Amino acid sequence: MSRVLLVSAGPGAPGLMTVRAAEAVRTAEALLYDALVCDEAVALAPERCIRIRTGKRSGKASMKQETINRLMLRLARRGLTVVRLKGGDASVFGRSGEERAFLEANGVAVEIVPGVTAASAAAAQFGFPLTHRGEARRLMLATARTRDGALADGGWREAADPETTVALYMAGASAAAVAERLMAEGRRPATPALAVENAGRPEARLVRTDLAGLPAAVAAAAFEGPVLLLVGEVAAQAKDQSPRTVPIPVGRLAGQGA
Amino acid sequence: MSRVLLVSAGPGAPGLMTVRAAEAVRTAEALLYDALVCDEAVALAPERCIRIRTGKRSGKASMKQETINRLMLRLARRGLTVVRLKGGDASVFGRSGEERAFLEANGVAVEIVPGVTAASAAAAQFGFPLTHRGEARRLMLATARTRDGALADGGWREAADPETTVALYMAGASAAAVAERLMAEGRRPATPALAVENAGRPEARLVRTDLAGLPAAVAAAAFEGPVLLLVGEVAAQAKDQSPRTVPIPVGRLAGQGA
Repeated sequence: MSRVLLVSAGPGAPGLMTVRAAEAVRTAEALLYDALVCDEAVALAPERCIRIRTGKRSGKASMKQETINRLMLRLARRGLTVVRLKGGDASVFGRSGEERAFLEANGVAVEIVPGVTAASAAAAQFGFPLTHRGEARRLMLATARTRDGALADGGWREAADPETTVALYMAGASAAAVAERLMAEGRRPATPALAVENAGRPEARLVRTDLAGLPAAVAAAAFEGPVLLLVGEVAAQAKDQSPRTVPIPVGRLAGQGA
Repeated sequence: MSRVLLVSAGPGAPGLMTVRAAEAVRTAEALLYDALVCDEAVALAPERCIRIRTGKRSGKASMKQETINRLMLRLARRGLTVVRLKGGDASVFGRSGEERAFLEANGVAVEIVPGVTAASAAAAQFGFPLTHRGEARRLMLATARTRDGALADGGWREAADPETTVALYMAGASAAAVAERLMAEGRRPATPALAVENAGRPEARLVRTDLAGLPAAVAAAAFEGPVLLLVGEVAAQAKDQSPRTVPIPVGRLAGQGA
């Protein structure tokens, strides 16, 4: 039976892939990878592996989801071990449900490998927790915008609860709308807030501010990579310092001798 | 300077540790590990490493947080490379904030290594996404109970939103209270729901039900391991099957030759 592995690459530092994810890439015969996957992860694939970049970089257009789906199916039907490598965790804003449903409907077996999501990576890298006793009782992961670009409906009342840590993915362009909405729902303007560009990667950048200051801080930072916004009391613990998570050298990650 | 690594072990399958986490354990001179950490992860530590189990198994009492803190400090001050190994992701219900604050206040440098959290592991293992276009716009991670055992205040209105996926950690004993509260806040009784014991581990068990049926289903399952409850439309996609995430053999994970 044909088979596709939907593999989470984690936040983009080679050391933050799981052991299973690295192993999957090392056995790939066809690799379809997103723009946020780091070069070191792609380099783990065997020399003879077919490599296809599906995500955009430097302004080039991304493949449509339907094109990616058909490509995976065609390669799997040729009997190849197909690895679909996605940034972060495939189950969190990663369209794993859509890709799995399409493949299974076409008779292809799917295995999913979980990964480290961007909020966890940012927390580890900049030394703040996502939950904290007596301060942050729950964590909400969300995206701010809908397909048509408007701010998403719903979800804002509870995101305004003082004991909720809110992590907004791919949210760089939404900082002003998000801050306005959260304050309108009653979240304190002085609530600590962060913007993290390229969370988990060696080149990550942290901006510390508060909810009221978030729009101006994000505008001033002129981010170019993906931006995670984080709002909540726990953000006060973040420290800007050289990234704590030291990437493992590629040779060791590749582990040819292991 | 003394140094402690707070390392996330992931959900308890050796292949679901990150490469960096496995590397950290391999270099540990003192290892303090929780009950949910798998034996294979502990086995990665060098033979001469001091190993201390901090969490309870089979009814034995866990160490108090203060005892763990002091132990880490004493070992770090002896100049040892101390690795504090925690199940799941250390930043999500893992007390990383408390441990880091204590250590840094005592002059010890702390590095945190992120990991795969239980919700991501369950989703990968049983083939459902945590977010899904047009169906699940956000993910809320929470615990149900407070320190005094009562159901937590707040957070329930938004958890009742039809487009929110709710993942409740360590929630086996709270299924009835959670279901009642969510339905009282307006969540549809027929909303798909899951209970997952030992999410991400080879011995994981899945129970599929709906919100109204959750209390009886959990009672009937007589779980003994940690239980994750998941409520949301995405739960309808879950399939009970042999776990998809194949653990990597220990020898390969240990990678002595790498």
